[in-house]
Amino acid sequence: MKKKQISIKEIARLSGVSIATVSRIINNNGRFSEETRQKVEKIIAEHHYQTNNIAKSLRMNISLTIGVIVPDINNEFFSVVVQEIERLFFDKGYSTIICNTAKSEEKEKEYLKVLEAKMVDGLICISGQEKLMVDILKRDVPIVCIDRRPKIDSKVAFIESDNYQGGILATEELIEKGCQRILLLTKKRNLSSVNERVNGYQQALKKHGLSFDPGLVIRANDKTDNLKAAKDAIEKTLAAGIPFDGVFATNDWLALGTILTLQEKGIQIPEQVKVVGFDNDTIASYCGIPITTIHQDKVRLAEEAVDALMTLMTSKEPLQETHKIVPVSLIQRKSTER
Amino acid sequence: MKKKQISIKEIARLSGVSIATVSRIINNNGRFSEETRQKVEKIIAEHHYQTNNIAKSLRMNISLTIGVIVPDINNEFFSVVVQEIERLFFDKGYSTIICNTAKSEEKEKEYLKVLEAKMVDGLICISGQEKLMVDILKRDVPIVCIDRRPKIDSKVAFIESDNYQGGILATEELIEKGCQRILLLTKKRNLSSVNERVNGYQQALKKHGLSFDPGLVIRANDKTDNLKAAKDAIEKTLAAGIPFDGVFATNDWLALGTILTLQEKGIQIPEQVKVVGFDNDTIASYCGIPITTIHQDKVRLAEEAVDALMTLMTSKEPLQETHKIVPVSLIQRKSTER
Repeated sequence: MKKKQISIKEIARLSGVSIATVSRIINNNGRFSEETRQKVEKIIAEHHYQTNNIAKSLRMNISLTIGVIVPDINNEFFSVVVQEIERLFFDKGYSTIICNTAKSEEKEKEYLKVLEAKMVDGLICISGQEKLMVDILKRDVPIVCIDRRPKIDSKVAFIESDNYQGGILATEELIEKGCQRILLLTKKRNLSSVNERVNGYQQALKKHGLSFDPGLVIRANDKTDNLKAAKDAIEKTLAAGIPFDGVFATNDWLALGTILTLQEKGIQIPEQVKVVGFDNDTIASYCGIPITTIHQDKVRLAEEAVDALMTLMTSKEPLQETHKIVPVSLIQRKSTER
Repeated sequence: MKKKQISIKEIARLSGVSIATVSRIINNNGRFSEETRQKVEKIIAEHHYQTNNIAKSLRMNISLTIGVIVPDINNEFFSVVVQEIERLFFDKGYSTIICNTAKSEEKEKEYLKVLEAKMVDGLICISGQEKLMVDILKRDVPIVCIDRRPKIDSKVAFIESDNYQGGILATEELIEKGCQRILLLTKKRNLSSVNERVNGYQQALKKHGLSFDPGLVIRANDKTDNLKAAKDAIEKTLAAGIPFDGVFATNDWLALGTILTLQEKGIQIPEQVKVVGFDNDTIASYCGIPITTIHQDKVRLAEEAVDALMTLMTSKEPLQETHKIVPVSLIQRKSTER
């Protein structure tokens, strides 16, 4: 009679350590104490288990690798979130491999396939394409999306900042500082995170009895960088003679581009036009005129994503919450001073 | 008699396309024209070749994936170089997977093993540990190092900016603007790239008849971020009563931290102290007092690294040049104005 094999999960449970730790001990790659090693090996010995089989089943089922798809590692919001994700997973015994899609749909498809071929145990997808290209995956890999509402629901969780509330906070800051005609500057790409900021802007106007003027919503060129896109959009708006006394830019680099362009035209910030950005990137603190902005809690977003993915990967139970919203806050700086 | 198998390389040569393209066609993953497909399949058919075998040998030998080890994706120098590397390799049919080591020796070792296990065809290692942990690799993977002089020589190429010349340019800019006592602010980590900048600083002093004062070389705390490290170091130097009229900081964030701290103490930049940074990060352009800096050609560094790795991976010949030095240039801004 063939002896029933003890699973890696049972070894972990009996030893009182994580699955990841058992795996590290079996593969002998160093991140565990001598005490832990003895405890785990005792359990393995007691159950007359052949480590070869465990190693094999591990290789078959658990790679202890996580794949992260990121649209632009040169964007501080993404790079900080990814760094936090790596740190949290490493502490749990997982390695993280990162693929940068440069916001290309073709690359997103390609890298999803690459990560699947590399046998990742779970995937974190950060923004990029609005429609998640997950239908190209053959395996049933658990996925967590950050900053983008996925169009699928099985084994997918969604973590985002409260972009709607962020849009309200940004717009109300401008209204409270006396702005009456508030330009909304964003980019053409149709992302749920940005659309929510625009919804918040409209809601704040409504709440304060200001009429919504579609002519004040400027969608800047996607194909150039934010500074150039903001410069072109603001110059065009000024040339068209459209009056405005406040600007809510949906990221800090658009806000900086706005300030630099207005200054070039001899317009005083914050005296004549006040500006609010979004993200709380480092640049917003240290640029010539420090920028009032909406802080996104990058650490918390990473924590929520890692927690959700761990649950999807290791629990038989479905997730309690498949959609988590992380609060944002207003950071006041010189660009909206009275 | 067993029929001699045509190699993928020969198929590529006979079809007049790259190895990567042949692989894509065999694996049918989409990035090739119909015309190219027909041409390659004709060659395959003519040679009575079983695509299964090709696919198998491909799986055995060529994964068309490159691994990149990066110490800190939240550092603009690294993230831009990595993005360029990804872009260049993608155009050649290779996918790039990125591992972030957060400057940890333990993680660097771990991720080298992970990338090897993921069967990458080549590795690019960017800075991090001075000693390359390559002895832990079992396979003979071609490696290119950027920004760090590897301590091994077989199948390893080394690409770096001309850090020595950068140190000279930075220091001469300060000397030419009248500085007599130039502080050199760097971090404790012992990296070849930084050591070369320090050597350039000493050489420039010598050339201009200024004596080298070891008390003016400040090695700031590694454990905190650059802004905090610079603040602590500059405050300590001021408190010790050490006079200086110029600062060469070995990166732009240390330079920014220096400027902010001096301003807090009521010291005028550039009137009383002039400051030069290194890297030409975006922050150097847009901070309150734009910073004179040394431009590193990130695009060229990536190009040289990709070229070298392609040669190591595909050519039977050894590399002509295993060490390439990319020129740097001085960018003058307000922080060194007279």
